[in-house]
Amino acid sequence: ARPRVGYFYSGKKIAQSMADGMVDMKVGDFQSIPVVVNENMSVYDAICQMFLEDVGTLFVVDDHHCLAGVLSRKDLLRSSIGGVDMDKIPVNVIMTRMPNITHCSKHDSLLQVAKKMIDNQIDALPVTEQGEKGLEVIGRITKTNITGAFVALGEEYDL
Amino acid sequence: ARPRVGYFYSGKKIAQSMADGMVDMKVGDFQSIPVVVNENMSVYDAICQMFLEDVGTLFVVDDHHCLAGVLSRKDLLRSSIGGVDMDKIPVNVIMTRMPNITHCSKHDSLLQVAKKMIDNQIDALPVTEQGEKGLEVIGRITKTNITGAFVALGEEYDL
Repeated sequence: ARPRVGYFYSGKKIAQSMADGMVDMKVGDFQSIPVVVNENMSVYDAICQMFLEDVGTLFVVDDHHCLAGVLSRKDLLRSSIGGVDMDKIPVNVIMTRMPNITHCSKHDSLLQVAKKMIDNQIDALPVTEQGEKGLEVIGRITKTNITGAFVALGEEYDL
Repeated sequence: ARPRVGYFYSGKKIAQSMADGMVDMKVGDFQSIPVVVNENMSVYDAICQMFLEDVGTLFVVDDHHCLAGVLSRKDLLRSSIGGVDMDKIPVNVIMTRMPNITHCSKHDSLLQVAKKMIDNQIDALPVTEQGEKGLEVIGRITKTNITGAFVALGEEYDL
């Protein structure tokens, strides 16, 4: 619960607004474009896609374009030294799969999502919307986005 | 420059203190323990070390224990698909090397370091101290630490 303080102020900034500003930050205002691959893509091609798009996490979808799994650099690096044939193995063998994936909505509080990232040691979450056949991936929220929000909060108050 | 506002308040929290609190956050209060490898370690052993220590970035030191380079998951993943012999190639062939490394001091403002991470697209910085023979690595500051600071700021004000 946010403390409600009443005060009179003089100066160009209302100080309490910083806390309000932080509470008002929503996932949708800070999310990035998601990079999505099909679950039948090979591990090798997924690694190339990750470099091509310069992201740290890929979201894996099924043939209905619904969320099936998540692939991190860590998952791909593990399989690269694991002696598997990266050209043959599809990503759905090595991905973290539903329902073991933490996801969020664009309306969620950025602060709550940041807490989930810290508590569950997650680098990136898919931003999803419920579709007819499953969860559709509409965004990506990462620790880079949270770091950006931290910087934006400071800049808004000329810190 | 931080705006100085004067006000009278009633309530249990002084609102301006949130901005002050953010400015007062120092790298040293949020840094993690650095994971360091010698520049002659093989790429394969470095990948194993990264999993063993569960970090996303390794710092590479020379025989004087001074900062020589940085290795990210991205660097290691690139070399793993690059057709090099990971058992034979030492990390100093593939690392990002001094002087092209952004580093910081434990006395630096966390907000300024967060800005550097965003502006230069860096996931982790070594926290260093000048030693007799070069820079000694005394800490590690990552986007996880910044995300943790964002959460801590919110929790301090019961948001």
